[in-house]
Amino acid sequence: MTANDLSTINELESCVRSYVRSFPAVFTKARGYKMWDENGKEYLDFFAGAGSLNYGHNEPNMKKKLVEYILDDGITHSLDKATTAKIDFLNKFNNVILKPRDLEYRIMFPGPTGTNTVESALKLARKVTGRTDIISFTNGFHGMTIGALSVTGNSMKRKGAGIPLSHTVTMPYDNFVSEDLDTLEYLERFLEDNGSGVSIPAAIILETVQGEGGINAARFEWIKKVDEICKRWGILLIIDDVQAGVGRTGTFFSFEPAGIKPDIVCLSKSIGGYGLPLALTLIRPDLDQWKPGEHNGTFRGNNHAFITATEALTYWEDPAFEKSVQDKSVTITKFLENMIEKYPEMKGHLKGRGFMQGISSDVDGFSDKVAKNAFKRALIMETAGGHDEVFKLFPPINIDEQGLEQGFKVIEDSIKATVQEMFPTKETVSN
Amino acid sequence: MTANDLSTINELESCVRSYVRSFPAVFTKARGYKMWDENGKEYLDFFAGAGSLNYGHNEPNMKKKLVEYILDDGITHSLDKATTAKIDFLNKFNNVILKPRDLEYRIMFPGPTGTNTVESALKLARKVTGRTDIISFTNGFHGMTIGALSVTGNSMKRKGAGIPLSHTVTMPYDNFVSEDLDTLEYLERFLEDNGSGVSIPAAIILETVQGEGGINAARFEWIKKVDEICKRWGILLIIDDVQAGVGRTGTFFSFEPAGIKPDIVCLSKSIGGYGLPLALTLIRPDLDQWKPGEHNGTFRGNNHAFITATEALTYWEDPAFEKSVQDKSVTITKFLENMIEKYPEMKGHLKGRGFMQGISSDVDGFSDKVAKNAFKRALIMETAGGHDEVFKLFPPINIDEQGLEQGFKVIEDSIKATVQEMFPTKETVSN
Amino acid sequence: MTANDLSTINELESCVRSYVRSFPAVFTKARGYKMWDENGKEYLDFFAGAGSLNYGHNEPNMKKKLVEYILDDGITHSLDKATTAKIDFLNKFNNVILKPRDLEYRIMFPGPTGTNTVESALKLARKVTGRTDIISFTNGFHGMTIGALSVTGNSMKRKGAGIPLSHTVTMPYDNFVSEDLDTLEYLERFLEDNGSGVSIPAAIILETVQGEGGINAARFEWIKKVDEICKRWGILLIIDDVQAGVGRTGTFFSFEPAGIKPDIVCLSKSIGGYGLPLALTLIRPDLDQWKPGEHNGTFRGNNHAFITATEALTYWEDPAFEKSVQDKSVTITKFLENMIEKYPEMKGHLKGRGFMQGISSDVDGFSDKVAKNAFKRALIMETAGGHDEVFKLFPPINIDEQGLEQGFKVIEDSIKATVQEMFPTKETVSN
Amino acid sequence: MTANDLSTINELESCVRSYVRSFPAVFTKARGYKMWDENGKEYLDFFAGAGSLNYGHNEPNMKKKLVEYILDDGITHSLDKATTAKIDFLNKFNNVILKPRDLEYRIMFPGPTGTNTVESALKLARKVTGRTDIISFTNGFHGMTIGALSVTGNSMKRKGAGIPLSHTVTMPYDNFVSEDLDTLEYLERFLEDNGSGVSIPAAIILETVQGEGGINAARFEWIKKVDEICKRWGILLIIDDVQAGVGRTGTFFSFEPAGIKPDIVCLSKSIGGYGLPLALTLIRPDLDQWKPGEHNGTFRGNNHAFITATEALTYWEDPAFEKSVQDKSVTITKFLENMIEKYPEMKGHLKGRGFMQGISSDVDGFSDKVAKNAFKRALIMETAGGHDEVFKLFPPINIDEQGLEQGFKVIEDSIKATVQEMFPTKETVSN
Repeated sequence: MTANDLSTINELESCVRSYVRSFPAVFTKARGYKMWDENGKEYLDFFAGAGSLNYGHNEPNMKKKLVEYILDDGITHSLDKATTAKIDFLNKFNNVILKPRDLEYRIMFPGPTGTNTVESALKLARKVTGRTDIISFTNGFHGMTIGALSVTGNSMKRKGAGIPLSHTVTMPYDNFVSEDLDTLEYLERFLEDNGSGVSIPAAIILETVQGEGGINAARFEWIKKVDEICKRWGILLIIDDVQAGVGRTGTFFSFEPAGIKPDIVCLSKSIGGYGLPLALTLIRPDLDQWKPGEHNGTFRGNNHAFITATEALTYWEDPAFEKSVQDKSVTITKFLENMIEKYPEMKGHLKGRGFMQGISSDVDGFSDKVAKNAFKRALIMETAGGHDEVFKLFPPINIDEQGLEQGFKVIEDSIKATVQEMFPTKETVSN
Repeated sequence: MTANDLSTINELESCVRSYVRSFPAVFTKARGYKMWDENGKEYLDFFAGAGSLNYGHNEPNMKKKLVEYILDDGITHSLDKATTAKIDFLNKFNNVILKPRDLEYRIMFPGPTGTNTVESALKLARKVTGRTDIISFTNGFHGMTIGALSVTGNSMKRKGAGIPLSHTVTMPYDNFVSEDLDTLEYLERFLEDNGSGVSIPAAIILETVQGEGGINAARFEWIKKVDEICKRWGILLIIDDVQAGVGRTGTFFSFEPAGIKPDIVCLSKSIGGYGLPLALTLIRPDLDQWKPGEHNGTFRGNNHAFITATEALTYWEDPAFEKSVQDKSVTITKFLENMIEKYPEMKGHLKGRGFMQGISSDVDGFSDKVAKNAFKRALIMETAGGHDEVFKLFPPINIDEQGLEQGFKVIEDSIKATVQEMFPTKETVSN
Repeated sequence: MTANDLSTINELESCVRSYVRSFPAVFTKARGYKMWDENGKEYLDFFAGAGSLNYGHNEPNMKKKLVEYILDDGITHSLDKATTAKIDFLNKFNNVILKPRDLEYRIMFPGPTGTNTVESALKLARKVTGRTDIISFTNGFHGMTIGALSVTGNSMKRKGAGIPLSHTVTMPYDNFVSEDLDTLEYLERFLEDNGSGVSIPAAIILETVQGEGGINAARFEWIKKVDEICKRWGILLIIDDVQAGVGRTGTFFSFEPAGIKPDIVCLSKSIGGYGLPLALTLIRPDLDQWKPGEHNGTFRGNNHAFITATEALTYWEDPAFEKSVQDKSVTITKFLENMIEKYPEMKGHLKGRGFMQGISSDVDGFSDKVAKNAFKRALIMETAGGHDEVFKLFPPINIDEQGLEQGFKVIEDSIKATVQEMFPTKETVSN
Repeated sequence: MTANDLSTINELESCVRSYVRSFPAVFTKARGYKMWDENGKEYLDFFAGAGSLNYGHNEPNMKKKLVEYILDDGITHSLDKATTAKIDFLNKFNNVILKPRDLEYRIMFPGPTGTNTVESALKLARKVTGRTDIISFTNGFHGMTIGALSVTGNSMKRKGAGIPLSHTVTMPYDNFVSEDLDTLEYLERFLEDNGSGVSIPAAIILETVQGEGGINAARFEWIKKVDEICKRWGILLIIDDVQAGVGRTGTFFSFEPAGIKPDIVCLSKSIGGYGLPLALTLIRPDLDQWKPGEHNGTFRGNNHAFITATEALTYWEDPAFEKSVQDKSVTITKFLENMIEKYPEMKGHLKGRGFMQGISSDVDGFSDKVAKNAFKRALIMETAGGHDEVFKLFPPINIDEQGLEQGFKVIEDSIKATVQEMFPTKETVSN
C-alpha cells in the first residue's frame, strides 16, 4: 500500500486550510509527544493541537477507558439528556477541580468548541446585566463566530466577518503601549468619565496569557487589578481559559496565582483530555439565569469526551503533577533565556508563561524561518503574533525530561541554521 | 452499584439544560433505535439526537472501525493538518455522494457543529459578494452563535442574544401567510423595487424542511423558484441541510428532488454517522475565495468522526438504501394520516416529509401531552413549532419495519390517552 | 448690473446639489405661486419648496408681522428659553389646531428640520417602550440623518449612509405588491408568529401619502387598520406629516379623515408658514418622558419662524379655507383624469390625494420629459418615484383658480409636447 | 397688556425643554449683548446662544439688510435652487474667508443645523474611503441625530438613542488621563498594531476646543499631531467647528493657529451671523464625490440666513476685528486667573481659549451655584462638563470693553456670594 500524497487535499479541501501548508505531511499515527506520517517518519509535537493535547496524543489510560466504553455500547450522543458518563464527569470535575480550589460554579455544556463557550458567556453576561457592550483587549483571540469574533483583535480575522462588528470596545492589554504605561489607568478613566463614550459594559473578557496574539502574559497584579475594576463597577469578569487553562500555564486554571474568582470561565481544547471536542462554561451560581434551552447545540452531549475528560482529571488528584509541570516550565524558561543570550542576532525576547512560552524576535521573518527549519528537522512548532514574530513551544504538559531535551536540541539547531541563513557573513557562536 | 439519580445534574449543571427535563432518566447504553437507562429500562428512540443519529446509536460497522482506529493509535486531533483518515473521507464523500449527483464542491471543515458551518457560510457569502445582508425565512433555525442566531426566527432564542441582531431580513416561508398567497411574489417585489428598503442580499439561507420551526416542508416548486430568484439577482443560495440532510427526507441532500444545485451547503449532525461532532461547508469551487486560516477552529480535524463518517457513506453506495428510506417514509405518512382521521379530536394536520414528519394539532397543549404520554410508555419523541404544537417522528432512517410498528403502537396509545385526558366526556374511537 | 450666471455655483458648491440641475436659473424674487429669475423672467411654482411653501412665497400678512418683529428687535435666537413669540405660537397652535380636533399633545421643538423631528420621534419611541426596532414602509422617506435614513426605503439614499442601517424592518405599503393583496395581513402574520424573526417594534412610522416615494396614497381604511394593529400589539404609531401635513392633502393633519389619533406626529416644512426652518414633534402627553435636555439642538428656538407660523395658523381659523383647499383638490383630480384619458400614449395613472397629486406614466422617461418641457415653459414641477415615473403637482394650497388654470395649461402643453417627441409617428389628439 | 408667565410653557411644551429651567424668564427683545424680558428687566448675555450669536443679538447692519431683503420679496426658501442671495454668499465666503487663508473647499449646504453638517461629513468620509468606522474623542459633542450621537461622548445623551451606537471608537482627548500622558501615543498604538481590534477609520472627528464637554482646549501641537497621524494612515480629518469656529477662539477657524488644513470642516451656529439656521460642510475638492441629491434637506436653502451670513463676513474684511477679539480674550483670561487666585476656596482651574473660557471648580456644585447667582444678578451664563463643574463665559465676540467689565463685575459678585454660601464659616477675601 502506497502512502497518500496531498493531492486529494489540494483538489477537494477548501483553500481556507492553513496548518497543512506549514506542515505538509500526511499524518497517520500518534502517541504522547510523537507523531508519524504515512511514510513512517517520526515527528516531535511541540504544538499539541494548539493546546488541545495537553496530555499528549492518545494517552493510554484515556484510550483504554474510551475503547471499553465504545465496546460496551455506552451512549455516544445525548444532546443534554442525562447520561452516566456526564454525571460521572460532573462529579469528578466538582470534586477534583472546583472544590479543592474553593470555587463554586454551575457547569454549562455549550456546543463543543471554544467559540461556542465564548458565545454562551457573552450572551449570558448581556442577559444578566441588561447591558450590551463587552470590553475585550488588544490582541485577544476568542473565536471565529460573529459574537466571539467581535471580541477578537486580529484585523484579518475581523475583516472575514463581512459585516461591521459591534457592541464591543477594545482596551489595551498589559504592556500594550509601553512598559511604563499602566494601561488600566486608561481603562478606568474611560469608565469613570461619563463623557468618555464608553458605557459600563456587561463584561470584560480576558485571556491571562494571549496565545494567538503573541504569547503575551499579563502580570498577575494587572489581572488582579482588572478583577478589582470589575467589582468596583459591577462588571462581570469572563476569563477565557480555552487555551491557557487545563494546566498549560502551570496551574489548572491560569488565573489561580492571581488570586481571583472570575464570574464566568470558558474552557475547551484540553478539557476533553484526548483531543475530542468538548467545551464548558463555568457560571457563578447566582448568574445562572438561563431559561431552559435558551442556548443549545446538537453536540453538547459528546459522551466520548466525557469519558476521556473524566479520566484526564485523575492527573490532578496528585499535587505532584502540577508541581512537575511547573518545574518543567522553569526548564523551558532557562532554555529560552539561554537561546536569547547565545544568539544575539535574533534579538529575542522571552514571552509567556509555563508551557506557553516562546521567543519574540525583532528580526523580520526570523521566527517564521525557525519554525520552518524545525519542521525540516521533524519538529512541529507554530508561530504567533500579528507578524508571526514569535515562535512558541507548546509541548504536552506531561512530556518527560527526555522529550523536552530532544525538542530543545532541534530548536537550537533550527535557530542556529536560521542565524546562518539570515546573517551569512557573521560567524555564529558555536554550540 | 446503585444507579445515579438526577440530583448531580440538578445541583451542578446550568439551568439552561432542557431535554433532561422532558426525558428525566439517566441513560447509559444504546444500540440502533433503542436506549437503556441505568435501571435497565428500554426506550424506543424516535428522536435520534434531533437528526444526529440517522443511522441509529452505535452502528456496528462504524463502531468496529472506530475501535480499531483508536487501538491502532490513529491520529485523534489534527486541526487542519492532513491525515489519512481525512483524505479517505474526502475521497469517499466525493466519489459516493458528490460525483454520482453531478455536484462539484470544495469541502471546508469549520468547527464541528451546525452553527459553525452556518457562520462560515454567511461569512463567505458576504466576503465573496461584498454585500452585508442575508435573507432568511420565518421560523428558520440555524444556530445559537450571534451570526447564525441573526438568521434564526424564534423570538425567545433571538432575545437570548442580548444585543440587536442585524444585517438580516426575514422573508415569509412557503405557506407562511396563507395557502393561497405566493410568498415569493412578496420577496421579489422587495428585491425589484429600489425603494423597498431591502437591498440585494449576499445570500438567501434556506432549510427545505424546517425542523425546529414546526416541521414545515416547502414545496419543491417553491424551492426551485427561490433558486431562480437567486440566479436572477446574483444572490448566493445557501441550503442549510444540517438537519434535513444525510437522508432524513429520503435523499442524501434534501434539495435533490427540487433539481437545484445550491452555491453553498451546510452539513453537520448525521454527517459524522455515529453522533460524533463534525460539520462540512460545501462551496461552489469558484466561490472558494477564503484566505488560508481566515476562518478556523480547534476541532475542525476530529478524526474519530472522519472514520465513522467514511464508514457511514457505505450505506449510500447501494441505491436500495435510499429506496428503503423512501418506502418507510410512505409508511410513516400513512400512519400519521390514519391517526389524523381516527382521532379527529386532536384536529391534526400532517407536516413534513420523509423521516421528518409529524402532526400539528390545533388543540392547545395536545401535542405536548402526546410526547409526555409517549415518554411514559418509554418512547422518546420531541415537539416542535412556536407553541410546541407539533409532535414529530424522528427515528433513525435505518430503522426496520418492526421498530417502526413498535413505535407506531406506542404513539397511537399516547394519542388515545391524550384524547381521553383532554376530552374525557367524549367516547373515543376504539382501536 | 448684470445678472449672475451659474458659474459660481458650479465652481464653489458641492456636487451634491440637485434641484439647480433640474431648474437651471438664478432666482431672485418670489410672491405667492410666482418666482422671478435675475433676468426678470416669471415662473409658475408648482413645486412649492417640496411642500414647504403651502401658503406660497412671501405671504403678505406673515411678511408684515415678520418685518415688524425684526424692526422691533424681537428675540431671534433663543435655544429653548421662553420667549413671547414662542408662547404665542404654542397657545395659538393649541387653540386653533389641536383643541378643535380634540387632540391633546405635548409639543417638542427639535432642531428645525424634518429629519430632526423624525429622529426625536424614533428616540422617544424606543426610550418609552424599551424596544429597539422600528417598522417602516416600502418607499417611505423620512430624512437623511442616520436614524431617519434607516427608516427610509430608497436604496441610493440608504447606500449614502456608508454603514449598514439597522434596528428597522420594512413592511409593504398599501398596494405594494398588487391591488388584491392585503399587505397588512402579511405584516400581522409577522407580529403574531413568534418564529417570524420580527420582534414587536417600538413604533411603526408612516406617511399617509408618500411624497418622495411616488405620491402613493394609502387608503384611509388601511391607515385605520395600521392604527388598530398598533393598539393591539402595544406599538406606538408615528405619523410623519412633514410633507403631507399642514393642509397639503386637504385637512390640517393628513390623517384626520382616517379617524385616528397617532401617538406621535412629526411636522416641519410648511409649519413655519413662510418657508423658515421649524419642526415640531407632537407627543401624546403620557409618552412625554424625556429628561430635560435629553434631545436638544441649537436652532430649536427659531423665533422668526414662530412669528410666521403663528400668523399662518390664522388661515385655519376659518373653515372656509379648508373647504377651498378640498374644492381645488377636486379640480386638480379632474384635470389629471382628463389628461390621462386625453393622452393615452403616456399610459398614465392618477396618484395621490389633495394638493399632492400626480400622474405615474408607464412609459419609461415620459414623466421626466414632461417636467423638463414644463420648465422650458416656465413652470416648476418635480418628478417622484424610484424611477422618476411620476410628475407631481405641488402648487401652494392657497393658489387661486386662475393660477391653477394657468398651470394646467402649461402642463397640458408639456404633456402634448412630450407625446409628440416620444411618439412622433402617431398623430396626437388635438386640444 | 400683562406679561406672559411660564404656565403655557409648562403645560404645552415637552418636558425635554432645558434652558428655560435654568433661566426662568420670558424674553422678548434683545440687542447686542443685552436681552430684556417681558417685564422690561435687562440681562447681560454671556451665553450668546451657545455660540450662535457671536456678533450679538440683532446686529444692526445685518438687521437692515435682512429687512430690506424681505420687504423686496427676496426668495426666502429655495431648497438648492440657485438664488442671488446664495451666490453672493458663496462668493464672499470664498473671497473673504477661504482665499486669504489659502484654503480651497467645495461648499455643501446640508440641513441648517450642526448635527446635519456632522452627519453629512460622516457619510461623505465613509463613502469616499469605503471604510465604516469613525474615531471621535472623549467628551466630544457633535449632535443629537443617530449618526452624530454615535460620535458624542456624553452617556446620558447616548442612552437617549435607545439603540446601541456603533461604527465608532472613542479615543482619549488631549489631557484626558493626566497631563503627563501623551494620549496620541495610545491612539497610534491602536492604529499600528494589527491585533488591536481597531481598524483604520474613515475619519477622525475633532473639536479643537470642546464646548459641551467642559471647555477643554487641546494644545495646538496635539492638534497638529492628530493631523499628521491622519495623513500617515490615510484617515480623513474632520474638524467640527460648529461651536469653536467663526471667531469664537480668536481666529475665524479655530484650527488656524495649529497650521493644519482639515479635509472636511463643519460649520453652523454663528455662520448665519444673526442667529438664523444655517450650516456648511466644507469639503476638500477631490473628496467632493457626492452624487446629486445623495444627501439633501428641505431647509438647505435658507436665504434669510444667506443675507445675514454675507453681511456678517464684512467683519472679517478688516484684520482689526480679529485682533480685537484676541485682545479681549487676553482680558478674559486675566480676569479668570485673578478670580482663581482671589477665591482659592473654589479650587478653580482655567479652561479653554479665546471667547470660550471658563473656570472648572473642584468643589462639587460650586460652578452651578455661580451660574445661578449670576442669573439672580441678571447675567446669563451656562455651565459645562460631565458634572457641570465648569462655568463658562460665552459673550458675543464683538462685545465692547464696557460690556465685558460689566459682566466681570456680576460674575465676581456671583463667585463671592457662592463662596459665602458654601463656606459660611470662613472669612472670604474682600474685593
